[in-house]
Amino acid sequence: MKKYNGYLLDLDGTIYKGKEPIPEAVAFIQKLHDQQIPYLFVTNNSTTSPEKVAVRIRDMGIPCEEKYVLTTSMAAASYITTNPYKQTAYIIGEDGLKEQIRSAGIQEDDEEPGFVVVGLDRQVTYDKLAKACLAVRNGAHFVSTNADNALPTEKGLMPGNGAITSIITVSTGVEPTFIGKPERIMIDQAVNMLGVSPENTVLIGDNYDTDILAGIQAGLDTIHVETGVTSSKEAALKSIPATYSISSLSEWNI
Amino acid sequence: MKKYNGYLLDLDGTIYKGKEPIPEAVAFIQKLHDQQIPYLFVTNNSTTSPEKVAVRIRDMGIPCEEKYVLTTSMAAASYITTNPYKQTAYIIGEDGLKEQIRSAGIQEDDEEPGFVVVGLDRQVTYDKLAKACLAVRNGAHFVSTNADNALPTEKGLMPGNGAITSIITVSTGVEPTFIGKPERIMIDQAVNMLGVSPENTVLIGDNYDTDILAGIQAGLDTIHVETGVTSSKEAALKSIPATYSISSLSEWNI
Repeated sequence: MKKYNGYLLDLDGTIYKGKEPIPEAVAFIQKLHDQQIPYLFVTNNSTTSPEKVAVRIRDMGIPCEEKYVLTTSMAAASYITTNPYKQTAYIIGEDGLKEQIRSAGIQEDDEEPGFVVVGLDRQVTYDKLAKACLAVRNGAHFVSTNADNALPTEKGLMPGNGAITSIITVSTGVEPTFIGKPERIMIDQAVNMLGVSPENTVLIGDNYDTDILAGIQAGLDTIHVETGVTSSKEAALKSIPATYSISSLSEWNI
Repeated sequence: MKKYNGYLLDLDGTIYKGKEPIPEAVAFIQKLHDQQIPYLFVTNNSTTSPEKVAVRIRDMGIPCEEKYVLTTSMAAASYITTNPYKQTAYIIGEDGLKEQIRSAGIQEDDEEPGFVVVGLDRQVTYDKLAKACLAVRNGAHFVSTNADNALPTEKGLMPGNGAITSIITVSTGVEPTFIGKPERIMIDQAVNMLGVSPENTVLIGDNYDTDILAGIQAGLDTIHVETGVTSSKEAALKSIPATYSISSLSEWNI
């Protein structure tokens, strides 16, 4: 086991399951905190604020501040500001996305925006999707927070942001730039925020197809933990496996 | 030129362009009518009734009755009644679709329907899409009126029914049965309605990728007419070309 100087961590399935913290993960993060090893929680959730994420994690007994959280909404806003196109956006999304776009100084514009940004919006309508399609056809840069197709809820699997995004992709023929896992854009930003070199940073997650793949695509070492979506059997069958695969975070020595 | 005993005809781009009738098509259909050669208008439009379509065509000076029209909504309702599954449906769509489903004796059910039927719905919401996804995941048979990705409007190209349908496909991983062109289901029904053998029936349309392909898939001879979407150059490049390609219907001798 290599010693890493920085840790990127997934949330659901890695740190908690639904509303229940995973005890081994709680103990592990407490150790990182005590030894002052930098860590950052990286989430594909675009609907909430980093502040609310931090509160939720702290309420589970896990040391966390707002600055230890990177959401796809933050990453999308940051991505836009580093691009040379008109800094206006038509947004399909909930408060978490709109707040981040706004606080990055990007004006909303539903007529001739520089960007169309799509995040999970449980109030999405035909009218919103039509505006997005027209703007993309008029040359707006098409950005989507993540490609998650299904959203687990108490009622069952609802349409995720990847499914909403597909309406615009299918209708216009234009593929979006996806910001979240498994793409590397958000992970590259996370490494920058952490302030540790990529060689000395490791990404920990339970879902091979989002977390681990994102780490691999960003050139990081990865730790697959079997407390969520992907079993260790499934993970071992992948053509590029995670650097390490463990049952729980109690097995990992920092 | 072969003599055919029955004609299937597309509407927009073949008989009229937007609100303007195509004079050669008007004269052609008058000849069919005068010579009592059976013809049927076959449309991917699911939002309106066959009665309204017939009125619209008649107002252009073209002989047409309600019984000369087959819409994807009629074809979808008919398709459902010939299947052995529970005769209830959760419907995403406008009045034209709901009326046809209802008048075919299929009850609406948004909890445990036998079918999920999707047609163009300019009032579609996340809630409707979520209900459709849950029903499809629970085993409802997934039917979509057509796969048209874009809807031409005065404002530009809006999301078509194929784009709306893709949300459910992408989220659930289940492919729908498409009823309309270029699939053969509606065309097979049209041939039955016409009462002429397929060998003696020809399909006329302007759009290779919907009309002509539908005819080919249904085993019919086809006439591509260059008054709409596909140019004769483009049509000639297809691996399976139309049986005939003409500039306008004035070139066709019945």
